[in-house]
Amino acid sequence: MRNPPLTPVLAIDIGGTKVEAALVDTLGVVVPNSRHRAGTGPLATSANLADAVTQVVALTLAALPYESVLLGVGIGCAGPISLLDGAVSPLNLPVWRGFPLRDLVHSLMPGVPVRLRMDGLCITLAEHWVGAARGFDNVMGMVVSTGVGGGLILGGNTVSGPTGNAGHIGHIEVGGFDDPCACGGTGCLEAVASGPRTVAWARAQGWTGHSGEDLGAAYSAGDPVAARAIARSGRALGQAIASATTLLDLDIVTIGGGFAQVTPDLFSFARASIALRTEFDYARRVRVVPSALSGDGPLIGAAALVHRASLVPEA
Amino acid sequence: MRNPPLTPVLAIDIGGTKVEAALVDTLGVVVPNSRHRAGTGPLATSANLADAVTQVVALTLAALPYESVLLGVGIGCAGPISLLDGAVSPLNLPVWRGFPLRDLVHSLMPGVPVRLRMDGLCITLAEHWVGAARGFDNVMGMVVSTGVGGGLILGGNTVSGPTGNAGHIGHIEVGGFDDPCACGGTGCLEAVASGPRTVAWARAQGWTGHSGEDLGAAYSAGDPVAARAIARSGRALGQAIASATTLLDLDIVTIGGGFAQVTPDLFSFARASIALRTEFDYARRVRVVPSALSGDGPLIGAAALVHRASLVPEA
Repeated sequence: MRNPPLTPVLAIDIGGTKVEAALVDTLGVVVPNSRHRAGTGPLATSANLADAVTQVVALTLAALPYESVLLGVGIGCAGPISLLDGAVSPLNLPVWRGFPLRDLVHSLMPGVPVRLRMDGLCITLAEHWVGAARGFDNVMGMVVSTGVGGGLILGGNTVSGPTGNAGHIGHIEVGGFDDPCACGGTGCLEAVASGPRTVAWARAQGWTGHSGEDLGAAYSAGDPVAARAIARSGRALGQAIASATTLLDLDIVTIGGGFAQVTPDLFSFARASIALRTEFDYARRVRVVPSALSGDGPLIGAAALVHRASLVPEA
Repeated sequence: MRNPPLTPVLAIDIGGTKVEAALVDTLGVVVPNSRHRAGTGPLATSANLADAVTQVVALTLAALPYESVLLGVGIGCAGPISLLDGAVSPLNLPVWRGFPLRDLVHSLMPGVPVRLRMDGLCITLAEHWVGAARGFDNVMGMVVSTGVGGGLILGGNTVSGPTGNAGHIGHIEVGGFDDPCACGGTGCLEAVASGPRTVAWARAQGWTGHSGEDLGAAYSAGDPVAARAIARSGRALGQAIASATTLLDLDIVTIGGGFAQVTPDLFSFARASIALRTEFDYARRVRVVPSALSGDGPLIGAAALVHRASLVPEA
């Protein structure tokens, strides 16, 4: 008996520093040797970025196995995005404002269905499919890294929002903080608890390191400023999760991203903050756990837009 | 040609001071003379409350027109609630903690389907059906009164949450406020912007009135403390709405409840606060409008749990 032909999805992930693509199979596994990456660098023009997308898509398509059928294309992109016209305006890619990403990708593979969503939503789909949120239907997937992003699955379905921007947990307010945010707000979670902002706060208190990795090492070595910095960001994460789960009645929150790995104690501080923050049983029950995804997570999530299409209503 | 028989829903609304019931028809209209009410008073025991429910249900059932068929029963109740066992624990009815409300109502009308949700969700369904949110699919319905409650419709479907408590907008944090909240938190929207809390803040600043109505009158007469109090609560409402719409990508927020009518300027302050709070186009686009429901709103919303059942997934 022959194996049926593969029906992979071509997944694309676009962030502040790189463009990646890969084929992802029906079990949420990246097809060997199909993953390709192009750096985007701070000097990249809009055309450079478009070329990078074109290039990684071509390389990935070349890895399509004989007789396999491309089921569709899933794109995860940093927000904000616009589902109406498939254009993207990632905060951290200033040369792309209203860039017609979905049209570009469509032109590379005519006739193949293309779905676009925010990267935070894709991560959440990946956690729900093959990660730490398996078996839960009310999920917030968070990424704590250069920024703070996220996505939502409520009642088993993704929540994209009509414009595609639901899940921006980084821009809800946390009480007791007045850090200015790039979005125009004050005391946004991202302005407090992102990796760079946590490092900047520690430096303002006299700590002399430079990166999240440095801060994690200092924390482990017992540096008191590093301890206060990580407690502060963990507390802010917990307060934001408490607000979100009070509003949304979540089962589980997964947290990935580089800065989420600074120390496991970041999670302890967040959990303690939730416990302090609310007496509602339904809010206190929320689980806050580390991501269980590999580095393939964002691509698996982008592929889930097609492989798990029934969870992704049209906007 | 005969009119088809009526298929009304028996709607029940339970709040901090009263129990109401009525028959609501398929167009969202209360059947004449079917609405009944019983006060619950601060001294009511758990049994008194149960008797009040039993009594208003019996009076309302007696109004069921000849040959009409009861389609079901919808109950809206102040939260928290527990959908798993149909029990309720309204914050402002302390004698009911884990009270089996759904079972009680079921025992009064055996064989008739009974659905229970939070009152804030019911209000939101009513705004979406016959009120200010008609034609929108991403809605937060708010009530600003003794407390601050709400409900959510996202992508055209209600979001109940697995325990039934999604929509508690009153307990998300607003930055820059440190008012203690009954839920155990600090700086919750409800602790700042409810009617009684706004009045209490004004009194702490030297104003001598006693009620939300007094405060509205003082505001209209140009009292400077009343002006600051209402601006403060409006600002907090706007900040909370900004957080919610940043996270959820809402189309419209409706605000009802007694204190929402203190002055139309409350809405202006809230809108100005949103505009100040965020530069994201998708968040700034949210409309903030007064409720368009009559006093029948909560009952119409409870009836919508059955009449509009396709919008209310099972939890």
